[in-house]
Amino acid sequence: MELKERPRIGVMGASECPPRILELAREVGYLIGRRGGLLVCGGQGGVMEAAARGAKEAGGITLGILPGARAVDANPYIDIPIVTGMGNARNAINVLTSQAIIAIHGAYGTLSEIALALRSGTPVVGLETWSLAPPEGGEADVALARSPEEAVTLAFRLAAGRP
Amino acid sequence: MELKERPRIGVMGASECPPRILELAREVGYLIGRRGGLLVCGGQGGVMEAAARGAKEAGGITLGILPGARAVDANPYIDIPIVTGMGNARNAINVLTSQAIIAIHGAYGTLSEIALALRSGTPVVGLETWSLAPPEGGEADVALARSPEEAVTLAFRLAAGRP
Amino acid sequence: MELKERPRIGVMGASECPPRILELAREVGYLIGRRGGLLVCGGQGGVMEAAARGAKEAGGITLGILPGARAVDANPYIDIPIVTGMGNARNAINVLTSQAIIAIHGAYGTLSEIALALRSGTPVVGLETWSLAPPEGGEADVALARSPEEAVTLAFRLAAGRP
Amino acid sequence: MELKERPRIGVMGASECPPRILELAREVGYLIGRRGGLLVCGGQGGVMEAAARGAKEAGGITLGILPGARAVDANPYIDIPIVTGMGNARNAINVLTSQAIIAIHGAYGTLSEIALALRSGTPVVGLETWSLAPPEGGEADVALARSPEEAVTLAFRLAAGRP
Repeated sequence: MELKERPRIGVMGASECPPRILELAREVGYLIGRRGGLLVCGGQGGVMEAAARGAKEAGGITLGILPGARAVDANPYIDIPIVTGMGNARNAINVLTSQAIIAIHGAYGTLSEIALALRSGTPVVGLETWSLAPPEGGEADVALARSPEEAVTLAFRLAAGRP
Repeated sequence: MELKERPRIGVMGASECPPRILELAREVGYLIGRRGGLLVCGGQGGVMEAAARGAKEAGGITLGILPGARAVDANPYIDIPIVTGMGNARNAINVLTSQAIIAIHGAYGTLSEIALALRSGTPVVGLETWSLAPPEGGEADVALARSPEEAVTLAFRLAAGRP
Repeated sequence: MELKERPRIGVMGASECPPRILELAREVGYLIGRRGGLLVCGGQGGVMEAAARGAKEAGGITLGILPGARAVDANPYIDIPIVTGMGNARNAINVLTSQAIIAIHGAYGTLSEIALALRSGTPVVGLETWSLAPPEGGEADVALARSPEEAVTLAFRLAAGRP
Repeated sequence: MELKERPRIGVMGASECPPRILELAREVGYLIGRRGGLLVCGGQGGVMEAAARGAKEAGGITLGILPGARAVDANPYIDIPIVTGMGNARNAINVLTSQAIIAIHGAYGTLSEIALALRSGTPVVGLETWSLAPPEGGEADVALARSPEEAVTLAFRLAAGRP
């Protein structure tokens, strides 16, 4: 598939998490790769590494948008490191670059990416992630998935037709 | 009070919100100003403007960290505009610059600031804001306040001793 | 060539410039593509578009790190848009992501990229670009090239062994 | 003078430089403070510290826009630290926040600030700083000053009427 035609699907998650979550991330990455997506992530360890590994196992392509100033800090499954040197401010770039994101589990950094995505209009799919109750009631606009398959199917559907 | 000695207290909230919330924000700002804090905010309308107005009514000092590239877009109660031109990525600066933040009500942008603050270790006080349930259970580390007085007291206490 | 093994070569130049300069940029891009480089640029028009076009004509791969918040603003020869929404602050990302840059002609934005590259240790090759005299005398550390061939050869040599 | 009415004058220079340059910077800062300017700088050592010190000696007010993630890294003469955590990308904020900048001597970081200022339309005054020859001939739009007095007078004049 032409690089340019690949949907850019972000996978957001923590650099430390339980083994069960890493397995989910790897499967999500695998499915993104198999469907011809370009996997966008933060380029670090944990969920980011597991998802990138999965994508590479499926012959996919991976982009890592790094918080630090050195490309060598990317995990070994990143094809293209984007070196920002901007710390957590790079989270805003992750979600603008993705046409949809899948948030898997996650700590505060992932929560910020969910929020920044919603703020900038990037669709969000959640897989075992934060529950968010807005102050005025109602619900945050996160599409809940119960499995990697569902998460990836939803993300590709939401990404379709996005600029 | 010496400018340098003033605790830097962030007030985060939406640019559009109900009148009742604007009143809360104004009172929070007033109390921050009266206690000698430097009010840090995003410099725009809504909660940011109401809080800055309150701080000025108490003789306080206000800083507005703007997403756009023009100082003139600051609300009229901002003493010092910081012009970032970085859109939502400036939210990361808001929370690094503050020694504690008070999140009032809020939409997705505020949620991102709560998350970025927690991520970078800046204490967070919540006033009628988002409820957050982490994926692994437990609670997000947000100190809940029931009134502007309580919010400001908590924020000054949490900011004390922070670098 | 494996995506991961491709040297990341930045091409920096203005969005408006004389036709002669566009021809130089296109040839630089072509040579980068032919040698298996990953062309990194600002993703906009002018030199950025001409270089990306050249790279694609040689079967290369192109990355555009955009100042705005919309991927659709990338020029038509960009394979992978990185959407920063950060205005000129994204210039710092361009030079951190590149293992060497070639500055072609250029206006103030290009000058900032030359400076930011030198500041962060990314090697700089200049082709008909700014002349810079440091205040303390001596010369700025820019490798001057007299042709696209020389510029690309120099850039690949300087990029080799860089992290 | 009302904080809000103070012209925001940036002083850009290196963190390491000859003693003679530090003296110039201190005098520039002193004159900015005496005229009621708000001194904007990068908050670090060298020229930034000397200028901030001068401003404080004249009873002025100082703002330091820091590259790192810790307020405590500001030099001791900074009244208000802005903590960006963005490395050199914060140079773009320095020049957007200033209504005019004075570049004193300087290394590559200062050169990037001159360029970013010119790019975003912030007037630049140069004092013993970089000489810049654009590729198409002519001169960069830097107002050359021969003394701290002249630099500060020029900067206030150029800042007047700027938004």
